[in-house]
Amino acid sequence: MSNARKRIAALRELMIKAGLDAYHVPSTDPHQSEYVPACWQRRQWLSGFSGSAGDVVVTRSTAGLWTDGRYFLQAADELRGSGIKLFKQGMRGVPTLAAYLGSTLQRGQTLGVDPQLLSRAVETELSAALEPAGARLKLVEGNLVDRLWTDRPPPSKAPVEILPAELAGERVRAKLRRLRDAMAERRAAAHVLTTLDAIAWLFNIRSADVEYNPVVIAYAIVTEDAARVFCDLEKVTPAVRRALAPVELLPYEATGAELARLARGKGVVWVDGRGVNVWVLKKLKGCALLTDPSPIHAMKARKNPTEIAGMRAAHVRDGRAMVRFLAWLDEAVPGGGVTELGAAARLAALRAEGERYRGESFETIAAYGAHGAIIHYGPTEATDVPLRPEGIFLIDAGGQYLDGTTDITRTVLLGPQATAEQRDRFTRVLKGHIAVARCRFPAGTAGRQLDTLARASLWEAGLNYNHGTGHGVGFYLNVHEGPQAISPTRCTGVPLEEGNILSNEPGYYQEGDYGIRLENLVLVVEDREASTEESPWLRFETITLCPIDTRLVEVELLTAEERTWLDTYHAGVREALAGGLSAKELGWLQRATAPL
Amino acid sequence: MSNARKRIAALRELMIKAGLDAYHVPSTDPHQSEYVPACWQRRQWLSGFSGSAGDVVVTRSTAGLWTDGRYFLQAADELRGSGIKLFKQGMRGVPTLAAYLGSTLQRGQTLGVDPQLLSRAVETELSAALEPAGARLKLVEGNLVDRLWTDRPPPSKAPVEILPAELAGERVRAKLRRLRDAMAERRAAAHVLTTLDAIAWLFNIRSADVEYNPVVIAYAIVTEDAARVFCDLEKVTPAVRRALAPVELLPYEATGAELARLARGKGVVWVDGRGVNVWVLKKLKGCALLTDPSPIHAMKARKNPTEIAGMRAAHVRDGRAMVRFLAWLDEAVPGGGVTELGAAARLAALRAEGERYRGESFETIAAYGAHGAIIHYGPTEATDVPLRPEGIFLIDAGGQYLDGTTDITRTVLLGPQATAEQRDRFTRVLKGHIAVARCRFPAGTAGRQLDTLARASLWEAGLNYNHGTGHGVGFYLNVHEGPQAISPTRCTGVPLEEGNILSNEPGYYQEGDYGIRLENLVLVVEDREASTEESPWLRFETITLCPIDTRLVEVELLTAEERTWLDTYHAGVREALAGGLSAKELGWLQRATAPL
Repeated sequence: MSNARKRIAALRELMIKAGLDAYHVPSTDPHQSEYVPACWQRRQWLSGFSGSAGDVVVTRSTAGLWTDGRYFLQAADELRGSGIKLFKQGMRGVPTLAAYLGSTLQRGQTLGVDPQLLSRAVETELSAALEPAGARLKLVEGNLVDRLWTDRPPPSKAPVEILPAELAGERVRAKLRRLRDAMAERRAAAHVLTTLDAIAWLFNIRSADVEYNPVVIAYAIVTEDAARVFCDLEKVTPAVRRALAPVELLPYEATGAELARLARGKGVVWVDGRGVNVWVLKKLKGCALLTDPSPIHAMKARKNPTEIAGMRAAHVRDGRAMVRFLAWLDEAVPGGGVTELGAAARLAALRAEGERYRGESFETIAAYGAHGAIIHYGPTEATDVPLRPEGIFLIDAGGQYLDGTTDITRTVLLGPQATAEQRDRFTRVLKGHIAVARCRFPAGTAGRQLDTLARASLWEAGLNYNHGTGHGVGFYLNVHEGPQAISPTRCTGVPLEEGNILSNEPGYYQEGDYGIRLENLVLVVEDREASTEESPWLRFETITLCPIDTRLVEVELLTAEERTWLDTYHAGVREALAGGLSAKELGWLQRATAPL
Repeated sequence: MSNARKRIAALRELMIKAGLDAYHVPSTDPHQSEYVPACWQRRQWLSGFSGSAGDVVVTRSTAGLWTDGRYFLQAADELRGSGIKLFKQGMRGVPTLAAYLGSTLQRGQTLGVDPQLLSRAVETELSAALEPAGARLKLVEGNLVDRLWTDRPPPSKAPVEILPAELAGERVRAKLRRLRDAMAERRAAAHVLTTLDAIAWLFNIRSADVEYNPVVIAYAIVTEDAARVFCDLEKVTPAVRRALAPVELLPYEATGAELARLARGKGVVWVDGRGVNVWVLKKLKGCALLTDPSPIHAMKARKNPTEIAGMRAAHVRDGRAMVRFLAWLDEAVPGGGVTELGAAARLAALRAEGERYRGESFETIAAYGAHGAIIHYGPTEATDVPLRPEGIFLIDAGGQYLDGTTDITRTVLLGPQATAEQRDRFTRVLKGHIAVARCRFPAGTAGRQLDTLARASLWEAGLNYNHGTGHGVGFYLNVHEGPQAISPTRCTGVPLEEGNILSNEPGYYQEGDYGIRLENLVLVVEDREASTEESPWLRFETITLCPIDTRLVEVELLTAEERTWLDTYHAGVREALAGGLSAKELGWLQRATAPL
């Protein structure tokens, strides 16, 4: 019997004891994190599915996993033998998790949920689905999975570090002043922070509590005259404590009592309704609650001049590492012995040679041939394959630097020639990438309005890709951050703002054959040419510096403007990166960035 | 003192008596209608503002109107001297109505609202804004404005008519069967219908209770074994009552009691959370409520083959009226004596010569020169101007036919030559129109994803238009219907489906100078070329038939594909319309549709 089968059977016994007919094991943690610390990766432990997104529901007789297009192939693979049915979110005829429960549970039955892992939105959705069925949600304190998971990893003891103001660009007291101004405008007496990157940004602190994301597991509460961070105090040295003063540091476990104290007060408490869990809301019960989005997200998303300068500088170092890597790849692959894992390790090692490097910003996707079509493929010992001098190799990787976060995808030709189809598809993806990179748009435009620009050339040929075009990127923080995004499905509709940084990454995936993705980060800047006094316009400036493989480009498919964009981009890459390279690498860069 | 000032002063007296610090006078009616019957046009009576959208709030010392970009100029004009401040929705720094109240009302103060005119969404938004201020919402039964409006028009007594099945394409019992299937799937025992076009569609009834919209003022309730329509029974002849049986007809005033009866039952009651007012929800209090969107909207939006054939046939008649009109315009304008109102009347008269014509589908926009830049300009005796043989004329008009609804905009040159700027702008609008008309997209795509295709060419030049690109259109029903739309701001994200009909109407407006808009209706059809078994693709088929003025086209700005589209469209128009025209009109049509 597979691990997952045994664990689910054991979970069912706990469910029966607790009088539950179904139990919800979401992917997230108490802070609604996308990437969760090892000690909270309950869904992965239970199901065996290792993707970053996917919720499990176990009933007395069934078990299901809901995940999105990035993970359909991986999930099908990892769930084999588990008895867990895969529900492909967004596909025709596939019920949502809530709809499934609504049609499966009977009158009087209960769905158990851990209030710390339940967002208000999911609570509303589940309740709405269960109510017509006569079933109900039951908040069960203490996670059932934890009772089974005897070798659960301990929580991180990584030290909390201060990000100095010369890197962060703004002191904590200045950030607190802006936050308190926003609170005053909404008449809020307290602001409860629950998402980890918001807390790291506000207090200029970083740690290593979550893989790839340099955040601190914490809650925080800001009032007019106090700012309190609740975290594992063993992680805080006296020097850090002194540096943070007058911000107070309290134990993570003290959060509940402090929330209850706030709830007994008279003032309005502001907590972001999207980032908060139901456990926090229950503690706050009784107070006047404001649940609009926290102003911190937008503040954090508008990078300040120091952050922007840091991001640019980090991208020069990152671009040099990428150039060294690609030059090495061209030379090494024909000799044999290079595998996906080897290539990923080589790139990480080259990045590590750069200054201020702190590690990867997410798990590297190094995908050769058919693996490229698995959108979030990460090579393992079991799947690793050698790279041969033929076909297409896709690498999507990023670095965390003290002065920035990078995320880049390049798709390169390993053999002498690509097929006509591959060239056509690569060029359509490139046209989409350029359409986003070149576009100007009126202030007030939401990122989701730009998504189709990246798809139009593929759509013309009846082709598409099953993921968004871009996500926000943090400053030495999470590689995925909101609210900014270029995506059709995220419905926030938040306008893009000057200083936002996003990825621009259209792709195309031919299942069983190859994958193409082309990703640069872009910075939102004012478009001075189009702006007028009453109507400001914006555009993107591409900050990622690395050649795009012109051997895969079907030049005839490009318009004159698109050709100019690519040549100009390459000239800029050459100029920015030339300085720190060996003669051999420089020769490669010059060839790779030669005009079309 | 202006009428509005006097009326607001009188309203304040009633507010004081009722202990209210502010009162909300929205644009809508108990059915959340966009266009409301004359007897419910309270906001217009109070404020003098005659646009179709705009809410008023009166406090003890201030009064404000919130409206959208379509009406900024008109509202500024009509509010002059009223003492009502104009709040331009969506403009930088302009608070929403809710935010304004949140920052204006003090602790303990109350905002009065008519529960029949309050949607759940607005209630939530207002409550959320008032709570931090310590102010609150008070539901006041009986509208305060009605007590002042002594010469209020009586409700419509227009007869209820049956739309025969050979025109509707589906019998009421078949529609009810589909609805009951959808109810069973969601375990709903009853479905409460509150929006007028949904009721008209479900029961194949039409009337003239609202100008331009052939709906019946009614509520309806469908259960497993009964279907009840609540309307003014004086409007129903015995023949109609017999034709509708077994559907029961009950007085409009009986709705409340029937809702209360439902609330006492055990079954789940389904009422569309977006279309329902708070009065209905209060009556339903206590029952298990399902508030997902009514399945009727999507059913109604997917036109059946008979409806599609009817829409096509109506567009042939409508297109001939348009061709006659445009040919007449070319000849008549140089002779003098044609005004905006005269042109609008001429078009209506030409439409009325066609079979099955029932009237206009909205107030005609006939806008010459600078009037064209007022997006929803409707000429009045006071604003009417003569058309001279120079510059640009914009006409946006539509017809109601027993077998369809039309909505078309053409922008035509009245003089010998347009300016280079006008030709550039017209051509960019045309490029956007063609981009939507030609695009293919995977099933699952929401209309809002296509909006930017229509803007891209304008954006390139730093230009834009301040309205959506397309709205759904009903079948001999409201010219605006949901859920389908091509708009960046409507966040429903409902995918477009085969059989949906929408407008495709990009524009450009040069304030004080001219306006350009180009509108055809499009039908969503399967794209057989791109569809595969597991992944269906869709495209649009343009159903509006009328030449586009090539005198305004800068041919060099068009790509080869765009030129082919326009020539092919014109060839189709010529072929479809040639039959019913005079020799002179035919000559005009041939010239107007000659290849570029």
